[in-house]
Amino acid sequence: MEKLLLGPGPSNTAPQVLEALARPTIGHLDPDFLELMDRVQQSLRQLFRTKNPVSIPVSGTGSAGMETLLVNLIEPGERIVIAVNGVFGGRAADLAQRLGADVETVTMPWGQPVDPEAVEQALRKKPARHLFFVHAETSTGALSDAATLANLAREHGALCLMDCVTSLTGLPVEIDDWGVDAAFSGTQKCLSVPPGLSPITLGPRALEKISQRGASPPSWYLDLSMVEKYWGPERSYHHTAPINMIYGLDAGMTLALEEGLDRRFDRHREAHQALRRGLEALGLSLLPPEGSRLPMLNAIELPAEVDEPALRQRLLGEHGIEVGAGLGELRGKVIRVGIMGHNAHRQNVVTFLAAFAECLSHQGRPVDPGAGVAAAITSA
Amino acid sequence: MEKLLLGPGPSNTAPQVLEALARPTIGHLDPDFLELMDRVQQSLRQLFRTKNPVSIPVSGTGSAGMETLLVNLIEPGERIVIAVNGVFGGRAADLAQRLGADVETVTMPWGQPVDPEAVEQALRKKPARHLFFVHAETSTGALSDAATLANLAREHGALCLMDCVTSLTGLPVEIDDWGVDAAFSGTQKCLSVPPGLSPITLGPRALEKISQRGASPPSWYLDLSMVEKYWGPERSYHHTAPINMIYGLDAGMTLALEEGLDRRFDRHREAHQALRRGLEALGLSLLPPEGSRLPMLNAIELPAEVDEPALRQRLLGEHGIEVGAGLGELRGKVIRVGIMGHNAHRQNVVTFLAAFAECLSHQGRPVDPGAGVAAAITSA
Repeated sequence: MEKLLLGPGPSNTAPQVLEALARPTIGHLDPDFLELMDRVQQSLRQLFRTKNPVSIPVSGTGSAGMETLLVNLIEPGERIVIAVNGVFGGRAADLAQRLGADVETVTMPWGQPVDPEAVEQALRKKPARHLFFVHAETSTGALSDAATLANLAREHGALCLMDCVTSLTGLPVEIDDWGVDAAFSGTQKCLSVPPGLSPITLGPRALEKISQRGASPPSWYLDLSMVEKYWGPERSYHHTAPINMIYGLDAGMTLALEEGLDRRFDRHREAHQALRRGLEALGLSLLPPEGSRLPMLNAIELPAEVDEPALRQRLLGEHGIEVGAGLGELRGKVIRVGIMGHNAHRQNVVTFLAAFAECLSHQGRPVDPGAGVAAAITSA
Repeated sequence: MEKLLLGPGPSNTAPQVLEALARPTIGHLDPDFLELMDRVQQSLRQLFRTKNPVSIPVSGTGSAGMETLLVNLIEPGERIVIAVNGVFGGRAADLAQRLGADVETVTMPWGQPVDPEAVEQALRKKPARHLFFVHAETSTGALSDAATLANLAREHGALCLMDCVTSLTGLPVEIDDWGVDAAFSGTQKCLSVPPGLSPITLGPRALEKISQRGASPPSWYLDLSMVEKYWGPERSYHHTAPINMIYGLDAGMTLALEEGLDRRFDRHREAHQALRRGLEALGLSLLPPEGSRLPMLNAIELPAEVDEPALRQRLLGEHGIEVGAGLGELRGKVIRVGIMGHNAHRQNVVTFLAAFAECLSHQGRPVDPGAGVAAAITSA
């Protein structure tokens, strides 16, 4: 039986994507591949809702996309304000420090969205060149107000850098409307393509900043001044692109665009609402406050007496369902349930709720699986 | 018709590898995946002929493997001697400079192997912490004497860093016997797995150097102190591994180990000899001197009047055969023909020679295709 991947990613890969992965490899400079590269860039612009010419997949997983943005945009000594409301903001702060930036973190309790007022204070205190925040915090399930934060960056003369690894194609990501200068995502979340590529997009202000660098960035592999010459009209060889993974990305994006992004967002929201209703019927709740909850990633607060590792192990071993552990300070206190991309259907929510109730009962905390399932399948 | 990839990589992917790529994605912390990770590391040790515990695939293409070695091993101000006899030594020098190293390049004419005497002079002149060289220069087809170079590094107290992107599983790579401290490879050459991963191996001296670093490397994604904790017994999450690509690597390595490395080397050598005989019959020769020629990558010197881009275009368009252009100073002067991995069979050599002769004739340089083919199929 195929496992049901309801963790923080990867989600289950769509059959059409698996088929694409297995297409015969061709050369990275083959005219047919160059044509595919054009289509991939056009599709990425549609997903990001941007006109940015530089909208490409980085040859690495989501964290390589984060690194591409920071290593190209940050120069030593530059001030960057980083909002930290979970693991991934913290990761960006770690990296920015390695790159010699003057890092100011604005920390929020885990599970809370980024507080725009706290960010504005940090930007007011001392001019910053960059603001970094995570749109959809995969470690907590919190959604932040990207439009407001991007606006603050612009008002204060900072570039706006956004992590949208978990949100892309699961809820609106409006690069141009919001005025985000640079963003990165992943393939293994709401796109349901295996991990291995990181879609990024950079706007004119970000590219101008890069063109004015004093020295080359401390990375050759991720140096955008060269990478973009391979993806752009020059087609000059940089490194060998991960051909088959790009077949998979292309297939995954085609599925998303054929469905229509707005319908895809609706599908994620509906699955999330079904999960929320089911959990409430079981007497459980989600970590982030209402209004700041991601549809595709749900951090469920566990009663104190639940043995979390045993619960996850039983879900996987007995029911074939993978969910994610809490990270950092949330370890043991929450499980993270992803209802992403190909998986975002009420049927998977029902499957999860029934199995979850069985696992809770198995730990001597009897709940009525019927109640959760009934609530989930009833429209609000 | 499937294209025949006889360029510098990717080579054609074996059907078993394509099948593996299309297996359902599972989680990067799933017990079944952790088991696969163990097998992958064991297989890598066999390919590299090493006992090094840290033998893992980096989540990026070959250049990401180069970057992983340099970014972790080099600290600012450290002296590194880099042998440059083609594009890839030059790439390492570029990267080392970005990392603040004191770089001394030892340059050889393109097509020549690395000259151990010149390297020794550079190591004598002033103590260096590192020596970097390319075992198999993909840009020229030259093979260097890795055992001698590794020995020189050791004698002079330098770490030995080796690029074996193109040689691994196509000719002997003896990490432990030679005393190479750190090496990286790629998947899309003699392994016939699509591009996207870079196998690396690091020995005790390299790991000790990393453990004594003053500051963290300027990369988070490639920071080995963290990456190895995911691949090692700790299994602590770092970044999401490229699951399906690792399925493919596993399948490709299984094929290589089932065949037996020595038999695989023989197969490459025999295909190369067939090609060499065929080219000689056409009055053509290979760029590197005899004794320093790679079996898997052949830089064929073209007569001055040949229009090289038109020749490659006709090979691909009319015959479905991809070969590589010359890079840098070799542009227009050579074509690079890879007979790698899954493709290293005399049958492909014959297919190439017949088509190549037709393309030369088409450019008004009539050659007898029969002569080349006859020479190729005749055992020496």
